[in-house]
Amino acid sequence: MTAGLVLLGTDGAARRGRLSTAHGIVETPAFMPVGTAATVKAMRPADVAATGAQMILANTYHLMLRPGAERVARLGGLHRFMAWPGPILTDSGGFQVMSLAKLREIDARGVTFRSHLDGASYELTPERSIEIQRMLDADITMVLDECTPYPAGLEDARASMELSLAWAERSKRAFAPREGYGLFGIVQGSIYPDLRRRSAEALAAIGFDGYAVGGLAVGEGQEEMFRVLDATLPLLPRERARYLMGVGKPADILGAVARGIDLFDCVLPTRSGRTSQAFTRGGTVNLRNARHLDDPRPLDAECPCTACTRFSRAYLHHLARAGEILGPMLLTEHNLRHYGDLLRCAREAIAEGRFEAYAAGVAEREARGDIAAL
Amino acid sequence: MTAGLVLLGTDGAARRGRLSTAHGIVETPAFMPVGTAATVKAMRPADVAATGAQMILANTYHLMLRPGAERVARLGGLHRFMAWPGPILTDSGGFQVMSLAKLREIDARGVTFRSHLDGASYELTPERSIEIQRMLDADITMVLDECTPYPAGLEDARASMELSLAWAERSKRAFAPREGYGLFGIVQGSIYPDLRRRSAEALAAIGFDGYAVGGLAVGEGQEEMFRVLDATLPLLPRERARYLMGVGKPADILGAVARGIDLFDCVLPTRSGRTSQAFTRGGTVNLRNARHLDDPRPLDAECPCTACTRFSRAYLHHLARAGEILGPMLLTEHNLRHYGDLLRCAREAIAEGRFEAYAAGVAEREARGDIAAL
Repeated sequence: MTAGLVLLGTDGAARRGRLSTAHGIVETPAFMPVGTAATVKAMRPADVAATGAQMILANTYHLMLRPGAERVARLGGLHRFMAWPGPILTDSGGFQVMSLAKLREIDARGVTFRSHLDGASYELTPERSIEIQRMLDADITMVLDECTPYPAGLEDARASMELSLAWAERSKRAFAPREGYGLFGIVQGSIYPDLRRRSAEALAAIGFDGYAVGGLAVGEGQEEMFRVLDATLPLLPRERARYLMGVGKPADILGAVARGIDLFDCVLPTRSGRTSQAFTRGGTVNLRNARHLDDPRPLDAECPCTACTRFSRAYLHHLARAGEILGPMLLTEHNLRHYGDLLRCAREAIAEGRFEAYAAGVAEREARGDIAAL
Repeated sequence: MTAGLVLLGTDGAARRGRLSTAHGIVETPAFMPVGTAATVKAMRPADVAATGAQMILANTYHLMLRPGAERVARLGGLHRFMAWPGPILTDSGGFQVMSLAKLREIDARGVTFRSHLDGASYELTPERSIEIQRMLDADITMVLDECTPYPAGLEDARASMELSLAWAERSKRAFAPREGYGLFGIVQGSIYPDLRRRSAEALAAIGFDGYAVGGLAVGEGQEEMFRVLDATLPLLPRERARYLMGVGKPADILGAVARGIDLFDCVLPTRSGRTSQAFTRGGTVNLRNARHLDDPRPLDAECPCTACTRFSRAYLHHLARAGEILGPMLLTEHNLRHYGDLLRCAREAIAEGRFEAYAAGVAEREARGDIAAL
């Protein structure tokens, strides 16, 4: 069988599951660190796994340009290339084509564009995207879609959604099922419940191993995002994995888990780690802030990561001010650990029927804020 | 007693020793990775230790400017601040004042200069340098000296050496002996044997816990450097540690070990790791070179580091081309491991009376060159 979710239990709409793939099991709900160019930035693979990450995401757009999917295939696939033995999900490349590439042109057939690296010309069709992800050896392949820009009028959103649907059908035909490998469809439709319904039902009729909700976390705000999830998730097959793409902050994630999402990815913990922003039990902390200059206390006294067990805030501040590479290394590890623990505790809470109280407790701790300055 | 060397054995002029400090033992000959701003760049402390490093060097100039020696002292000293529990040697600050600071003025009293970071004005005297290194809690403190520029005429070199001698005397008076802490003098005198003799004998008469040879690796070339060592080392007390500052390439190090040097520091393995240069058993390898694009083989098949056991040259090349932080991380670890293994094997060879053959073997392997391109 293909990569599939086994639902282990629920707590309200929140779900506890187990996704089986060719390269291992993912306990859900789960957060996937982003490994754009075949590396989770500033982290060695074993250290990524130690944060609690089970599956990572890699970007088809970046890898097709450099080092090239054919090259990765010759070198034994992405797992071997980047020394990540666990499950990998790849996106379709569509999102970055629209956000990064130059001179892109989109039509029913697909997208042609020029690389942001060297201007070379490429074509990405649903079939080519599936082929690339196959060469990368992704455990979970995503259909090519158009991430509808926000805001979009109803008719633009409808046309975009219908294009994505047509591409989803072609993606499904192009995908050769293999034991432990899965293909996920992507629901589009902007903020319009009717379009989301049409997209979800049509995708379910095609039949995928999992369903992503796309076109969110693009500026619509948390309230609108949750409204879309409320309108969309009940229409998706209960026994399939549900993946909210590109989300998000801890509160976004817990709110989406409460609504029945199983999988997340976001650059936030890794990117923030490179700009001295840390996620802690007391909320976000900017380590460049001068209030940390003489602070001997740990960043987060309850966190078991290297930054929190070995170093003071004063030292982390020093690294940030001095622009030392160790700063991004330690804070990326910390942030991924924070996200890993957030989801691990969420899984435990769902299993024990206390997810609502858990999420409320996390929010309450965050609202109390960071420890006072010394 | 202060930090002291116990000589365990010799093999020709090469020495096998054990340096005891307040924060642990250093088996010599040893290489000290450079941790300029209280971090060995791109390395977590535990990973530095895993490369075989026993003692690290930190830079007084950088730390006095940021975060400030008084601050480090308040935070519990440098070992605690940077989470390096082992021995630390600090330089005096003099070298970087001359190479990095602005508007520096030197006189008999000391050096005044402006910070390269913010233009703030500082004074560094022998007494202040000792005080700063005490606040940092350095196991090994270096006297303030002037690193004579190269080339220097005889009279300039003499004046510079005599100034360093006067400062060495003041440094000795300012240094309060403590159990496990040591003060090293620094021999100057450029390439002039008479000046080197005068410096070495005068320093030995003052009496230090160890003796550094300074003013080398400044452009004079390996042959000249070895000539200076041949002229200088026999004049130094046999039972004290000998430290060749700022050296060097593997061949420089083995040549100096053969002449009786016990300690080394150099930015080469760490800095090279950040510019995609790797030291291997087959010589230096530039991983940006396109010949590695499709090479599935390890960087160095005999090296047990993360880069060599987990990744292909093709992947390391990819990281270099993509400018990914993991590249400097992996290559810094590799290079420090290469240096760590080089010195560990040197110690074993000296203990077994086969150092000359060992050094010849290393040179022969390097001369054979890197593995051929695929």
